[in-house]
Amino acid sequence: MVNTTIPIRLGMVIYPASTALDMFGPLNALNLLSIDHNMTLSLVARDMDPISIDRTIIDGVPQGMLASSASPYFTQYILPTHTFDNAPDFDVILVPGGVGTRNLKDTQPIVDWLGERMGDPELNYMMTICTGSSLLARTGKMAGKNATTNKAAFEWVKSVEHADKVNWIAKARWVVDGNLWTSSGVSAGTDMTLSWIEHLHGRNESERIRNLMEWVALNQTDDPFAEYWGVV
Amino acid sequence: MVNTTIPIRLGMVIYPASTALDMFGPLNALNLLSIDHNMTLSLVARDMDPISIDRTIIDGVPQGMLASSASPYFTQYILPTHTFDNAPDFDVILVPGGVGTRNLKDTQPIVDWLGERMGDPELNYMMTICTGSSLLARTGKMAGKNATTNKAAFEWVKSVEHADKVNWIAKARWVVDGNLWTSSGVSAGTDMTLSWIEHLHGRNESERIRNLMEWVALNQTDDPFAEYWGVV
Repeated sequence: MVNTTIPIRLGMVIYPASTALDMFGPLNALNLLSIDHNMTLSLVARDMDPISIDRTIIDGVPQGMLASSASPYFTQYILPTHTFDNAPDFDVILVPGGVGTRNLKDTQPIVDWLGERMGDPELNYMMTICTGSSLLARTGKMAGKNATTNKAAFEWVKSVEHADKVNWIAKARWVVDGNLWTSSGVSAGTDMTLSWIEHLHGRNESERIRNLMEWVALNQTDDPFAEYWGVV
Repeated sequence: MVNTTIPIRLGMVIYPASTALDMFGPLNALNLLSIDHNMTLSLVARDMDPISIDRTIIDGVPQGMLASSASPYFTQYILPTHTFDNAPDFDVILVPGGVGTRNLKDTQPIVDWLGERMGDPELNYMMTICTGSSLLARTGKMAGKNATTNKAAFEWVKSVEHADKVNWIAKARWVVDGNLWTSSGVSAGTDMTLSWIEHLHGRNESERIRNLMEWVALNQTDDPFAEYWGVV
């Protein structure tokens, strides 16, 4: 098969202690979409070192919030394809969440890079999953926008620098405001991604993929977790 | 913190073109569980090369069923921790599915290894997700057992060697038969994992983790995808 269409260029930011399902739920839907649609994927990190999921492990030593957990080494490693310095242009950028976002110092290069990319006229969609929104909020470029985020971490996200300028919506599985798509916690990122696939390719395609994933989706305004976590 | 408990030793098989969410849905739940419970994780593969998700890419060249897709290079890479030759003893083995299972020749070492491990008296749980069941069925050691598998691929799984000796249950999100736990496709593996966490640690713990994941779970006998895929 010869690809005659122009590919959609997706980039996902990855960093230590990003959450597994924040990344691989949306990526599973996109992997399936990419079988029939010409797309490229870059995983963009600070450097080319393997990235530890759900834990921060540097030179083999656990760091950060989960270093004193019962299982400080319980992780998986994924490989970046690009760094912030050499990442190509993107049509879509996805930003997963995770406890790694709490490390304000080590995530500053992500915030700086996202701030630059928010000004890129080629960027058509900026999408955050879970507490990935805290990284984007810190750029100051979410000011005046409607958005949502992880429900267990809602108050923390609202507390980061510049987050007070965002209109945070408590009860929403995901929120769309112009080119900015933001989802609630973890699994909600996959519902948002399926909705984005519907937006681009129609409901038959998003439903085909959802059924291949045997995935139970919530609607945009269906959010039982806002109530569970007391952020009504 | 000093760990004074004996860890539960988990091993997950990984291989080229295994499905992202088959692995990282269950692993997300287990990553959260491991914060409070002493556990170890090994990712076991044929060799120590990085593993391409959802696509088979060998020496940079796409192979197999998706090599002629619109996006033959659309993948992510994860790192094994052990090979079949040096993997330690496990209490739990998890086997994800994916189109890579269709490559009968390259998956034969997985089948051989699973066949050996099924005879290990230390193994307390063998769990398959999606078409991971086809790898275990090929060992011949699922004979006479109740099991389920991916609904879109149900007829294919039933067609592999020795699968005719298994009692395949069409309408089930997951099935438990003794120490054998088998789930339906992709997302169903996470429902099964949450149920296994409930089985070990009680419903408060499984619900705590489900709500942290903002995950919508189906019950064991709730399976709308059996009807969708016509395997009633």
